[in-house]
Amino acid sequence: MKIALDAMGGDYAPEVAVIGARDALKLYPKIERLFLTGDGNQLQKLATEHKLDDPRAIIIHAPEVVEMNESGAKTLRRKKKSSIAVATDLVKSGDADAVVSAGNTGAAVAAATVKLRTLKGVERAGICTPLPNEFGVCNLLDAGANPEAKPQHLVTYATMGSIYAKHVLGVKHRPKVGLMSNGEEDEKGTTFTKQTFALLRILDETGRAPFDFVGNVEGHDLYASELDVVLTDGFTGNVILKTAEATAKAMSRWIKHEFKRNPFRVMSAAMSRNVFQAVKKKSSYEYYGGSPLLGVNGVCIIAHGGSSALAVRNSIRVAAEAVEQQINPQIEAALAALNRPS
Amino acid sequence: MKIALDAMGGDYAPEVAVIGARDALKLYPKIERLFLTGDGNQLQKLATEHKLDDPRAIIIHAPEVVEMNESGAKTLRRKKKSSIAVATDLVKSGDADAVVSAGNTGAAVAAATVKLRTLKGVERAGICTPLPNEFGVCNLLDAGANPEAKPQHLVTYATMGSIYAKHVLGVKHRPKVGLMSNGEEDEKGTTFTKQTFALLRILDETGRAPFDFVGNVEGHDLYASELDVVLTDGFTGNVILKTAEATAKAMSRWIKHEFKRNPFRVMSAAMSRNVFQAVKKKSSYEYYGGSPLLGVNGVCIIAHGGSSALAVRNSIRVAAEAVEQQINPQIEAALAALNRPS
Repeated sequence: MKIALDAMGGDYAPEVAVIGARDALKLYPKIERLFLTGDGNQLQKLATEHKLDDPRAIIIHAPEVVEMNESGAKTLRRKKKSSIAVATDLVKSGDADAVVSAGNTGAAVAAATVKLRTLKGVERAGICTPLPNEFGVCNLLDAGANPEAKPQHLVTYATMGSIYAKHVLGVKHRPKVGLMSNGEEDEKGTTFTKQTFALLRILDETGRAPFDFVGNVEGHDLYASELDVVLTDGFTGNVILKTAEATAKAMSRWIKHEFKRNPFRVMSAAMSRNVFQAVKKKSSYEYYGGSPLLGVNGVCIIAHGGSSALAVRNSIRVAAEAVEQQINPQIEAALAALNRPS
Repeated sequence: MKIALDAMGGDYAPEVAVIGARDALKLYPKIERLFLTGDGNQLQKLATEHKLDDPRAIIIHAPEVVEMNESGAKTLRRKKKSSIAVATDLVKSGDADAVVSAGNTGAAVAAATVKLRTLKGVERAGICTPLPNEFGVCNLLDAGANPEAKPQHLVTYATMGSIYAKHVLGVKHRPKVGLMSNGEEDEKGTTFTKQTFALLRILDETGRAPFDFVGNVEGHDLYASELDVVLTDGFTGNVILKTAEATAKAMSRWIKHEFKRNPFRVMSAAMSRNVFQAVKKKSSYEYYGGSPLLGVNGVCIIAHGGSSALAVRNSIRVAAEAVEQQINPQIEAALAALNRPS
């Protein structure tokens, strides 16, 4: 398979992109080509420095970058030769099977939606972000592609997320889908979530959906083993993701701060280091890699803006797994089945 | 001052209510009366058992309870003699200055709104929840009273939250207000947040608002020192609150789990116990007490549903502080000033 990496996207690009690409090529022999799009001179220099000399790595020059603080969709139209545009064009032309970017999310979503188009039956694509928990992962969908989603979009997300969980993440049971609300009781929510709830309940009852709808869920359900997909509009999803990440970071900071208060505590901290490393490993996005943008005609993986080389490497792995499982035809078939007259 | 406590509200009521009331009376001599509303026999038995014998404590019999999983507003209309209805009636009649409840939030909000009415210039009341951080607290408003808020409601919340921060929480600077969005750039957000942003920006420029509007904020800003109020609709606010709490709990669980993995780690854990207690103390709502429902004509404090006796005691303290500061006339004056023609 062939993967295109937006090597200029992300807070620590392009260096982490080059190192992540080098490590991914070492670990995943199934990758036949890894295109790195970005400033040719800069990437070549970093490739030499970090010993990225695998012949499968190919640098494709892209002279522009959509910066993290620019309006993604708007800037994309202006910067036609940006690294994300060039990487996505490689998928459009068939030269690559997947695009991976840790850059501006709006630009990555717009590039994939405009250049690759959405699948049959999909009005809006959604970002499916795996939230690690003690038992595995819970996928939050949509994590930010579609801030003003309509109820029908969430029905599509439920279907796509379930197929992703089953065929790419290897979930063995019938996927369980919950709807994020402000309480677990059926009558809780806004007009939007109540309409979405009604649509999902009907689908669940007809038995045509590839998932079980468990009803309204709350924050703590993100950390439960039983849920595979938590549905929400892209605004709330983005806020959830950032709140969870910020809370985990704040707690780590407080714990570190307390551990520094006296020499005895400094010693305890040294003794506990492995514990915190294990927790970090379990809870960090670095180890889970990127989030697929589900619903586009191709594979697009959105990596965290703060991606390290390890996060880039794991995002490339997620792209490879998604390409291998070819879930897009299954998504189209499942969506067609939802609407088939009985 | 006189305070009415809904002694049947909350997951661990009425026992924690009775213990919390006893401890509050010991600590806060300014309380002249503390009414406990609920099942008379049950409360009297608990009062004897837990030595609540202060003559300032008065049990008011209320034969019904709005359960946590009932629809708050609806059930309130049916159960006219519920503990929350009777407690709020005491404020309405002037027998009490404040009502405190750890029970069904919807019922507490509906009781206060219907019985006490909203202040002049306030269309919808909002829950102002203090989120503890390393530097103090950041107030999330609205944390759940008004799930489908309109932009103008958030302008009112900004004003009320700023006055609460300044006069009750003792913030010395001009309060800083942020708007929760899916990115920090001005153009980020939904139609709703963009309209709210525009209203706040105009107010900020006229200099009539009792706060500085800092623009869009994200999850990590909840843990920054510089923000006094983070505005959001009640649906998103409720989701933020529950996500933050669930994330903190999940992290604690993971850390505990890792500490149990081998005898050496068990020993390190014992040595680190003080550290975790300090973090818990700093991050727990138990120590901050309840959240005021701002905008009603009286004082209404919403405590966490999972309140312990300590949390109940601290919620009674928050009620006493709010009564003492008498911020409602100041809120009405500030709202009138916002709309005064120049």
